[in-house]
Amino acid sequence: MTTAEPTASIAQGATTRDLTADPARFAREILDPIRAVVGERGVITDRAAMQPMMVAWRDNWNGRVPLVVMPATTEQMAAVVAICARTNTPIVPQGGNTGLTGAGQPHGDDSEIVVSTRRMNRIREIDLANDTITVDAGVVLQVIQETARANGRLFPLSLGAEGSCQIGGNLSTNAGGVQALRYGTARALVAGLEVVLPDGQIWDGLRGLRKDNAGYDLKQIFIGAEGTLGIITAATLKLLPLPKASATAFLATPSPATAVSWLRRAKSSLGDSITTVELMERRCLDVAIKHNASIRDPLPTRHDWYLLVEVADQSTHDALEAHLLSALEAGLDGGELVDGTVASSAEQAAALWRIREGTPEGQRLEGASYKHDVSVPISKVAQFIEEANGALETRFPGLRSFAFGHLGDGNIHYNPLQAEGGDGSVWQSYLPEVNQIVHDIVAKLGGSITAEHGIGRLRIGEVERYKSDVEMMMMRKLKNCFDPYNIMNPGKLLTRARLSPGTAG
Amino acid sequence: MTTAEPTASIAQGATTRDLTADPARFAREILDPIRAVVGERGVITDRAAMQPMMVAWRDNWNGRVPLVVMPATTEQMAAVVAICARTNTPIVPQGGNTGLTGAGQPHGDDSEIVVSTRRMNRIREIDLANDTITVDAGVVLQVIQETARANGRLFPLSLGAEGSCQIGGNLSTNAGGVQALRYGTARALVAGLEVVLPDGQIWDGLRGLRKDNAGYDLKQIFIGAEGTLGIITAATLKLLPLPKASATAFLATPSPATAVSWLRRAKSSLGDSITTVELMERRCLDVAIKHNASIRDPLPTRHDWYLLVEVADQSTHDALEAHLLSALEAGLDGGELVDGTVASSAEQAAALWRIREGTPEGQRLEGASYKHDVSVPISKVAQFIEEANGALETRFPGLRSFAFGHLGDGNIHYNPLQAEGGDGSVWQSYLPEVNQIVHDIVAKLGGSITAEHGIGRLRIGEVERYKSDVEMMMMRKLKNCFDPYNIMNPGKLLTRARLSPGTAG
Repeated sequence: MTTAEPTASIAQGATTRDLTADPARFAREILDPIRAVVGERGVITDRAAMQPMMVAWRDNWNGRVPLVVMPATTEQMAAVVAICARTNTPIVPQGGNTGLTGAGQPHGDDSEIVVSTRRMNRIREIDLANDTITVDAGVVLQVIQETARANGRLFPLSLGAEGSCQIGGNLSTNAGGVQALRYGTARALVAGLEVVLPDGQIWDGLRGLRKDNAGYDLKQIFIGAEGTLGIITAATLKLLPLPKASATAFLATPSPATAVSWLRRAKSSLGDSITTVELMERRCLDVAIKHNASIRDPLPTRHDWYLLVEVADQSTHDALEAHLLSALEAGLDGGELVDGTVASSAEQAAALWRIREGTPEGQRLEGASYKHDVSVPISKVAQFIEEANGALETRFPGLRSFAFGHLGDGNIHYNPLQAEGGDGSVWQSYLPEVNQIVHDIVAKLGGSITAEHGIGRLRIGEVERYKSDVEMMMMRKLKNCFDPYNIMNPGKLLTRARLSPGTAG
Repeated sequence: MTTAEPTASIAQGATTRDLTADPARFAREILDPIRAVVGERGVITDRAAMQPMMVAWRDNWNGRVPLVVMPATTEQMAAVVAICARTNTPIVPQGGNTGLTGAGQPHGDDSEIVVSTRRMNRIREIDLANDTITVDAGVVLQVIQETARANGRLFPLSLGAEGSCQIGGNLSTNAGGVQALRYGTARALVAGLEVVLPDGQIWDGLRGLRKDNAGYDLKQIFIGAEGTLGIITAATLKLLPLPKASATAFLATPSPATAVSWLRRAKSSLGDSITTVELMERRCLDVAIKHNASIRDPLPTRHDWYLLVEVADQSTHDALEAHLLSALEAGLDGGELVDGTVASSAEQAAALWRIREGTPEGQRLEGASYKHDVSVPISKVAQFIEEANGALETRFPGLRSFAFGHLGDGNIHYNPLQAEGGDGSVWQSYLPEVNQIVHDIVAKLGGSITAEHGIGRLRIGEVERYKSDVEMMMMRKLKNCFDPYNIMNPGKLLTRARLSPGTAG
């Protein structure tokens, strides 16, 4: 499902100015001073060359800016931000440009510049006795994973875009992924941060400490802030022991309720060794198989719901597999599971993972879908799916419910698909109503309308419907406190127009 | 070592006012309206009756206030804070009064009132399928641990004061304790918070979610804020699987360097099953044994350094013990360990823990000691101890170095003791110089001068020596943003006098 561009008046308020309206002034006050800092290699002014950074890979955000800046160091980044602060020039920080909410896309009105971390890609230090690695913000997630592994350590953050997303973006969205059940979201993996503040000062909070109660834990403010409070330029990340054994199972379960019930039992017997519990509706398999010839149904008969489960620990493969099998047998005895298979090789495990990974692509090829990245208490997952399915099927006959995601975190990607053979553009027009039906149920159950993708531009109007006035006021206070002129990614996470009077840039 | 009262001018600035200077006005504007909210049972005005809440159990803070308020509900708390906001009356939030930095003690000048959470002690909800428990701020930590255990779950926060500290205070100090190595500090165990803000509004952030990226993660701001940004009134906490097996070992190691080296090896082979790795100098055993007849040396010969290690997981005791023994043997083969014993019963394990627990009390009975709660990267622990010992022994001959604590987190309680038989009061006078020697080394090694106890009043002057101007500015901005009139625990964590001009209450 593509998403309409928010109107400029909501996204940016009435204060937007076209930086290119006076080209000589733009060159004199912004472009030339920035070029003097970062050099010719650090700027892009050619519209065609910057085009890949103006669009998102999934949604139809279309940005337009007169300048993309690529600082090579933190000091350059600070100098660039200081120029922007002095000239009141709004900045859109961008990492690997793999986000799903438009947080990294500029608006389409030449009112901002993009500042990219792509040239800041050094691994600064690895401290094995401290189990930490310090990296520039522009290092690609997979590079960190591989560096950790080459040193006998695990960096557990793992998600679809890991081959191109950058750690600065991962931290700015507090990315989740498929192992958050065990290792937490990106936030849990951060020991320290370095941030360029909206006034161009550098905050060096790169401490490699597990415990530090000397005052407010300032790094927490920037994690998940979507670049609206400053630009993360480096991070000290926690490394973990590399598991010695892992096992992967694909299980059939009658319903989300039985899946939750088995999860509860499995946590008790498998404990921290559970790294992944992904729930999938049968339709996930159907579209994954239909659109990818390398994907097969691993079980002999059809079932309504499935779980992809992975466990890992420091024991041996045989001991771990025995442990897993015992949890599966208990589930079969208890009626929570009805069938299942345990991968007997790395190839088989990869084949099971392909089902999960093929699900989003299968959906995309199937037609217009409504993407929701919601979380509810795990105890409410079954109720959420049942109520959302019921409400949508009543209102939109033929709509195909499509739930999958990280059951272990209560994070469901609930992406109903248009009716088979329907007119995609008609179905797209239902988006606001579908969103509201789904998100109203999420809110009623104490959930979040964006569990791991963030607000960006995609949810910016909706979030105010579900948050209390007190909470919105607190968020605006925090924004005003650190970015009083609203030059940091304006119109993302918070609407630009609704900052306190007199503070919008 | 007792600690001198900071002077009023540093702690509170020049704006302090004696609330009792005009008794009629105090009664009319503050006491009577508050009594009308909380009832007679909710106020203490008798100086003798409130005395236990004016003093700290370890240090010699001596507070004096005209009123202690004990709201029974969040709504009462909000109404009380609103009265204080209206009348610009500073509030000292207090939980179990077990803190170690004076953060919960009022100043001694009748300029504040104490607001205690002791009557807010309901367990609001336990959701086993979601593995969360929601509790009032005044619930005692041990009650939460026991409630979790009775429901087959673990609440892993564990520390010496657990029988009397309250969860609101634990969260406000981001308590650490003996299992933080595996489960993180208190911060990691929070899913949601309810907070009464400095203007008396209630923020209901009691969400039982593992993932929620709908905007800034506001709860993080209040965790570890020592009550300076608002009063935590309730929390939704994460519960974990109750381990099925545990094993405890007491090991001798030649030096901190070998201890760190073995820890690195053990993490690789034991992984997440390691819950505790406590380092102790021989002197810890000596004073613990000397002052507690129930404590015995568990090993046949004397060694310089020891480790108390605990592992726990979902396997069987035999499997876990075999796993632990194999890690110990590898340490013996590698020269990182020189002797050790594994407890063969719960009683033996308890006896090993008594050594660790008897260490602070043994020190106290031995004379004046200088208490430091520092952290450094784990890779720097050995260097820290060596340099601190060397610098102190050079400057203060006879001073007995005394290091123990949470090696797995890099958190060392470094408490040198006065020379044997010396004059305690003379040794006390060395405190500022000792602190500076130790903390300068910590800072040089990238550490924190308060790893888990917080700043409170104890470290308020020192923290500015070690933090950058940028970081102090960020902390003050955050304080000003949420508590512009500085009525929330003024003179704790941040000096009152150094807030922005015009904002001090």
